[in-house]
Amino acid sequence: MTRPLPTIIAASQAASQRLADRHTPFIMNDWYVAAFGTEVKDQLLARTLLGQRVVMYRTSKQQVVALEDRCPHRSMPLSAGTLEQDSIVCAYHGFRFNTEGNCIEVPSQSSCPHNVGIKAYPTHERGPVVWIWMGEPDQADLSKLPPQDWLQDPQWETSQGYLHLKASYVRLHENLLDLTHLSFLHAKSFGTPDYAKATFESELGDGRFALLRNVVPTTLPPVWGVPTGLTGTGQAARIVRSEYRSIGLHEVSVSFYDCHLPEAERQTFRIRTAHMPTPETATSTHYFIVHGRDFAQQDAATTQFMHDQLFVAFQEDVDGLALQEQALAATLPEDLYEFSVASDGPAVAMRRHVLARQHQEANARTALK
Amino acid sequence: MTRPLPTIIAASQAASQRLADRHTPFIMNDWYVAAFGTEVKDQLLARTLLGQRVVMYRTSKQQVVALEDRCPHRSMPLSAGTLEQDSIVCAYHGFRFNTEGNCIEVPSQSSCPHNVGIKAYPTHERGPVVWIWMGEPDQADLSKLPPQDWLQDPQWETSQGYLHLKASYVRLHENLLDLTHLSFLHAKSFGTPDYAKATFESELGDGRFALLRNVVPTTLPPVWGVPTGLTGTGQAARIVRSEYRSIGLHEVSVSFYDCHLPEAERQTFRIRTAHMPTPETATSTHYFIVHGRDFAQQDAATTQFMHDQLFVAFQEDVDGLALQEQALAATLPEDLYEFSVASDGPAVAMRRHVLARQHQEANARTALK
Amino acid sequence: MTRPLPTIIAASQAASQRLADRHTPFIMNDWYVAAFGTEVKDQLLARTLLGQRVVMYRTSKQQVVALEDRCPHRSMPLSAGTLEQDSIVCAYHGFRFNTEGNCIEVPSQSSCPHNVGIKAYPTHERGPVVWIWMGEPDQADLSKLPPQDWLQDPQWETSQGYLHLKASYVRLHENLLDLTHLSFLHAKSFGTPDYAKATFESELGDGRFALLRNVVPTTLPPVWGVPTGLTGTGQAARIVRSEYRSIGLHEVSVSFYDCHLPEAERQTFRIRTAHMPTPETATSTHYFIVHGRDFAQQDAATTQFMHDQLFVAFQEDVDGLALQEQALAATLPEDLYEFSVASDGPAVAMRRHVLARQHQEANARTALK
Repeated sequence: MTRPLPTIIAASQAASQRLADRHTPFIMNDWYVAAFGTEVKDQLLARTLLGQRVVMYRTSKQQVVALEDRCPHRSMPLSAGTLEQDSIVCAYHGFRFNTEGNCIEVPSQSSCPHNVGIKAYPTHERGPVVWIWMGEPDQADLSKLPPQDWLQDPQWETSQGYLHLKASYVRLHENLLDLTHLSFLHAKSFGTPDYAKATFESELGDGRFALLRNVVPTTLPPVWGVPTGLTGTGQAARIVRSEYRSIGLHEVSVSFYDCHLPEAERQTFRIRTAHMPTPETATSTHYFIVHGRDFAQQDAATTQFMHDQLFVAFQEDVDGLALQEQALAATLPEDLYEFSVASDGPAVAMRRHVLARQHQEANARTALK
Repeated sequence: MTRPLPTIIAASQAASQRLADRHTPFIMNDWYVAAFGTEVKDQLLARTLLGQRVVMYRTSKQQVVALEDRCPHRSMPLSAGTLEQDSIVCAYHGFRFNTEGNCIEVPSQSSCPHNVGIKAYPTHERGPVVWIWMGEPDQADLSKLPPQDWLQDPQWETSQGYLHLKASYVRLHENLLDLTHLSFLHAKSFGTPDYAKATFESELGDGRFALLRNVVPTTLPPVWGVPTGLTGTGQAARIVRSEYRSIGLHEVSVSFYDCHLPEAERQTFRIRTAHMPTPETATSTHYFIVHGRDFAQQDAATTQFMHDQLFVAFQEDVDGLALQEQALAATLPEDLYEFSVASDGPAVAMRRHVLARQHQEANARTALK
Repeated sequence: MTRPLPTIIAASQAASQRLADRHTPFIMNDWYVAAFGTEVKDQLLARTLLGQRVVMYRTSKQQVVALEDRCPHRSMPLSAGTLEQDSIVCAYHGFRFNTEGNCIEVPSQSSCPHNVGIKAYPTHERGPVVWIWMGEPDQADLSKLPPQDWLQDPQWETSQGYLHLKASYVRLHENLLDLTHLSFLHAKSFGTPDYAKATFESELGDGRFALLRNVVPTTLPPVWGVPTGLTGTGQAARIVRSEYRSIGLHEVSVSFYDCHLPEAERQTFRIRTAHMPTPETATSTHYFIVHGRDFAQQDAATTQFMHDQLFVAFQEDVDGLALQEQALAATLPEDLYEFSVASDGPAVAMRRHVLARQHQEANARTALK
């Protein structure tokens, strides 16, 4: 055989039509990470989120403000202006905007026209990150934030980092829901050959998608072996749960223990990673990462060691997904088809869910008109 | 408030539809600056003007020639060829073109086919600049050149410079007709805080648009204070006239004097700037500038001092307008709206005029067909 | 005159509509050079051919394999993977593909799904080059390869090189079929002034197009004069045959001899160049070149001397054609017209033939549906 029969290709293309991808408009009505809190200071920070240019800053009362980054007078980016007394003064003609996006001063005249303003986006700072709501402001309900309490829990020792991904955020979620790639894309970092072959279970439903995988016995890569002391060949259990919690948060939780010890004598070491992708454009993504562990707290050398090793692996994802995106862009629609296998189950369910949500949003907007 | 109500946005968008912008096709039937005279020598100079590639050179009789920069045989740029005896020899197959764009030699055959040629554009060199007419040649009337006599008047000591602007020429004309931006975009160069608040008058009509502004008393920035000696705080009057004279020329004239002296005892210092934008593409512009003064003539150090300071300020315009253009390009049409205020009056009238002229041109072309 | 009358321009535009150019879809059902044989080793080589991403490698049995460069699972380029035991293992999830493009292993499961595969392209290595067939595999008939026996004949001492051309392959074929450009584009390398004016004959028909030109007497440029010893002014005959043999091969054959000697006393020196353009995209081309001579065999210094001089000249073509392509891209369709002269005869016939072939291919595809 070479390429499959046209009928088989057509069937795979039809199946792909039911999955979200870079052609799917963004889900607007949900929380995304806009920045790490440490990035937002008393100066203007410009960032494109969900295709829109946003300017952020922190007020004297430590509130995070996020506004449309375009002066409604003559379209100068407000981020090119200056921050004065918690309001932005446009670089071009000095129009001033308050934290709610209202124009409150036009220097060339004594009074300010009514009704001149720009979007102010609801934000919410929690733990290390600032969440933003880019959709309908009246739907910005904090109860819709995904569970993430450990990010603020002192039991968890954390480090954080940012990567710029030249690929769709959908493909990053997909990547995280099929960890069989650890044996290949991460063969030189935190993957092991037995990973892809380990049995797995899926949990699908209610807008969450999880993959559970027990790799027992296994040999830990240095990033985990060194800090846990589980360095023996075939010594360790590696129990993984990888979960899509929301469009803006995917959490990976892993437990390690010595699988040759009886349960009562074991020490269990746990690590967690919050993967927080925010679309920049259809084919680029802000990738915020917080990694934590519940052991060796306050051990800065271990934190640095693990952080450095982990970000080698995350960079492998970023590099690989960029290659994938390039191949997608270079392929004519009629030549493009993708086949799925059993281990793709959670990712396929997630992508179907995201597309369905987008359709719901589009329908709701149409109904309002 | 945040973003204005949809009805208000829709009204502002409808108003913008009546103003020229980067989507407006170029006005063809008018004079534009193609080059400084000093740029055009006995060698081939390639430049894109109004979206068309042009090749220019100076003949042995000092005439400036401007031709379409494409060989009509196999599309090689003629500017890649050689200039021989006032005619261009194509780099590819040696076809030769005279100053009128006629093919006069085909080396591979004894006779030259009739009717093979390219556009020759009317040009007119006056003072420091070469004007070009890109539209219908039979309409290229020198009486349509805007007034500019001082550019050749020895009373005016001048210097000149070129900037490449990554924005529409329309936005440069707009910039020049609303000088309230001096207090902000030029806060660190030749603007002062009182500038934006000074009263102004407009002169609108007959295809010219002017803004008059008296800033009295004011403190001069070094670029004017040092050469005039008017360095005292609140010592000076700054009387400004900024005028759109044609699609290719905007002139700013300023008078300075000591506002604490009686009129009879005052010395008035005058400066003028010819701002000559020529569209390169819809969103890039050749920006030719000649600056002059009627005092301290033949003082080369003062010329250099003023030139250097001024071009810092003009670069601020170029940088700011490029940011504006980027924001315009990054905004979805449905999210784009611009509000105008009183000080935008002349610029809005100018942009309405330019769009109306373009419609006239398009209608005239249609009528001819 | 300046630009020709609209009716004349319209006629030239109508004539151009019958000629292949960068807008013409690729001819798929024919042989093209994919690589020099020396480039294809036991590692993965990625190259875009006729707009399609291809990955190539050489098996342990020295066979050249060419596959679609995209994993049909999740679109990772296969060229990012690894070559193991003559099969490719995808960098992302480890799917394995054999030399026929069949998926033969999915690491996350015990069995491999049927019908998952990618295109395998027929290839044929002959002499120094690897030919590839990108169209319908069942039409890949070796009898359709153009004549090229000298490339494997020890009588011919050869050297080879690759140039990347930022222009359509059609314009390279056109260039090779009108050598009057030697007097201009190659004035400083292997052209001479008398070249363009020499008489020529054309041979047209049967999908081949040839141009014959006798330049006698002439002065040889150093690239030929030095190795043949024919360095005298007006001493040499230069007898040229330039022939389009197929969409993938153009051959130039030249004989040199002392034109002042009687035929019986002459030594004839022959050189040949195989010009093998393969489209990369509509406006870029892989340009493979093999040059040979039938004298001074095994003389490495002469080979190096001629190679270096020749590639200066071929680079002039590459640079010139890129400028031509830029001018074509920068010209509005309504402003674009090209006139042909007598010496364009073979090139015009070739371009008409290529367009007609493309129409035949398109019609055949439509008929199959």
